[in-house]
Amino acid sequence: MEEFELIRRLSPSYYRQSSVVKGIGDDAFVFRSSEDIVFTTDTMVEDVHFSKSTMAPHAVGYRALAANVSDLAAMGSEPAFYSVSLVVPPDWTEEEIVELYDGMDELGRVFGMDLIGGDTVSGKQLVVAITAHGYLQKGKARYRSAARPGDLLFVTGTLGDSRGGLEELLHSSPPFSEYLVQRHRYPEPRAVFASRLQGLNRLCLNDVSDGIASEANEIASASGVTVHVDRELLPISESLRSVYPEKAVEWALSGGEDFELLGTVSEQEKEELLRTAEHMKMRVTFIGTITSSDAPRVLIHSGEKAETLLPTGYTHLQERRSQ
Amino acid sequence: MEEFELIRRLSPSYYRQSSVVKGIGDDAFVFRSSEDIVFTTDTMVEDVHFSKSTMAPHAVGYRALAANVSDLAAMGSEPAFYSVSLVVPPDWTEEEIVELYDGMDELGRVFGMDLIGGDTVSGKQLVVAITAHGYLQKGKARYRSAARPGDLLFVTGTLGDSRGGLEELLHSSPPFSEYLVQRHRYPEPRAVFASRLQGLNRLCLNDVSDGIASEANEIASASGVTVHVDRELLPISESLRSVYPEKAVEWALSGGEDFELLGTVSEQEKEELLRTAEHMKMRVTFIGTITSSDAPRVLIHSGEKAETLLPTGYTHLQERRSQ
Repeated sequence: MEEFELIRRLSPSYYRQSSVVKGIGDDAFVFRSSEDIVFTTDTMVEDVHFSKSTMAPHAVGYRALAANVSDLAAMGSEPAFYSVSLVVPPDWTEEEIVELYDGMDELGRVFGMDLIGGDTVSGKQLVVAITAHGYLQKGKARYRSAARPGDLLFVTGTLGDSRGGLEELLHSSPPFSEYLVQRHRYPEPRAVFASRLQGLNRLCLNDVSDGIASEANEIASASGVTVHVDRELLPISESLRSVYPEKAVEWALSGGEDFELLGTVSEQEKEELLRTAEHMKMRVTFIGTITSSDAPRVLIHSGEKAETLLPTGYTHLQERRSQ
Repeated sequence: MEEFELIRRLSPSYYRQSSVVKGIGDDAFVFRSSEDIVFTTDTMVEDVHFSKSTMAPHAVGYRALAANVSDLAAMGSEPAFYSVSLVVPPDWTEEEIVELYDGMDELGRVFGMDLIGGDTVSGKQLVVAITAHGYLQKGKARYRSAARPGDLLFVTGTLGDSRGGLEELLHSSPPFSEYLVQRHRYPEPRAVFASRLQGLNRLCLNDVSDGIASEANEIASASGVTVHVDRELLPISESLRSVYPEKAVEWALSGGEDFELLGTVSEQEKEELLRTAEHMKMRVTFIGTITSSDAPRVLIHSGEKAETLLPTGYTHLQERRSQ
């Protein structure tokens, strides 16, 4: 592959973001912002994080960027830029690489993001290392540590679908559930929703990359609270319930890579959050509450029964009383 | 390797940069700046860009970051942050990974840089993908396109040493020239010098990553000028001249990875640049001039003779008259 030609082909002819001072073409990229800047990075390796047998290059690119955008969303920021470091093995063709970039661009366009740099080098195994920048109002970053006793726990969309889609592709036979496969390959990070909530005084956000069991534990630990989850309230899609009825709840808790948002909001600001969701026609489900705690943990409730929910998704009837 | 434990061990306990709003530990990193922000990325792959046989992990980390810092220098900015995406193969031990990070920290400390994120994943081959951020006064980015007819061409330090050091390690036998090997493993990007020149009205800068033949052609092309280089004025170290007398000039032109700065400055601002260099005890050599041109190119002069210098370092007696 002629790297020079590839860069020319992939470099944007204009920039969507007005904060760009100098785009691709010099030693580095230059930008300017009066807002706070959020920066994140995420790396996907072939045969570790994905496989060509379940993901076309277009979906690989899309999903690699989606993981970054989801992190920007979890900070409450508006996505602005991304850069891509690509290691390309001999068995990937130039066309496949272009498809991979097209997949990123498909998601990038949704958020008005610009590709601002990166490099393409040779190697034994495909590696996609992406970084992304987002903007937010000064002081409005949404931390895991922001949950307070009395808050309500909410989650966007439905949970476990991505895990269900992977199961379809790996261990099932066609016809697959199109919905589940689509949710696995083309998840929709909730960055627009998150950035529209900048008016709220306080909001705790975490994105669902490892499953809500893990994310809820991060909130509990960072905020020093107990997070209560009601098992009956978990939002599970019709498709997941019908195709994998026995696995649906387990995957909703620990499936991961749904790139939904898990968060907490105060009673006072709950209505504003719901109005924003309704305006965007986005599903938001309240699935629990926050209480104060000497021993931060997550409790999952089912009827009268309460169990400790570990980050892995396993539960223990006996509550852990200490860290 | 326990990634969690490794991150804890590598995460800074405090941040040197006051622009940090939120450091490592949430979904993303947050910062704030009233200055322009420069962003760059560079990727090194084992057995493509370096080999354990010539570079210890400490030097691999140092040099990977040095390539990024050199890009920040070439924009005239002051280095601030770096992040690291690392793909680790089974034959790298945790100790080696820590050494690699120590190498980065050794250089980062020189410039007061903070490690602000990244991830460590498994793979077949070591990949170090680094990104770095720098700051500069608004509108003071130093572009390749800023050279003007009448300017003087200058370069920092000496040229070709890194290539000489690599030759020592690959094709020579001990005792090696310690100076050349050190220049190969631990190059010194000129970011402090570059950022101290922010007072100059106009300055064209490019860092020497591919050899000055390549960098001078980039300046010629971006600025639409002819760059004249005087072969006799090329700064070559005593060591390179004595160990590789027959290769010294060739490597000075095309050796690459010296991470020096090649630039142009006006007659009027030449003295200020020299004063800054002298104050820092840094060698700066004027090696040529800039003239206007209908056909941007680089000419290398030796006595009465002038040849076209191609980006590869090859020369052509017959001048190219067109692009």
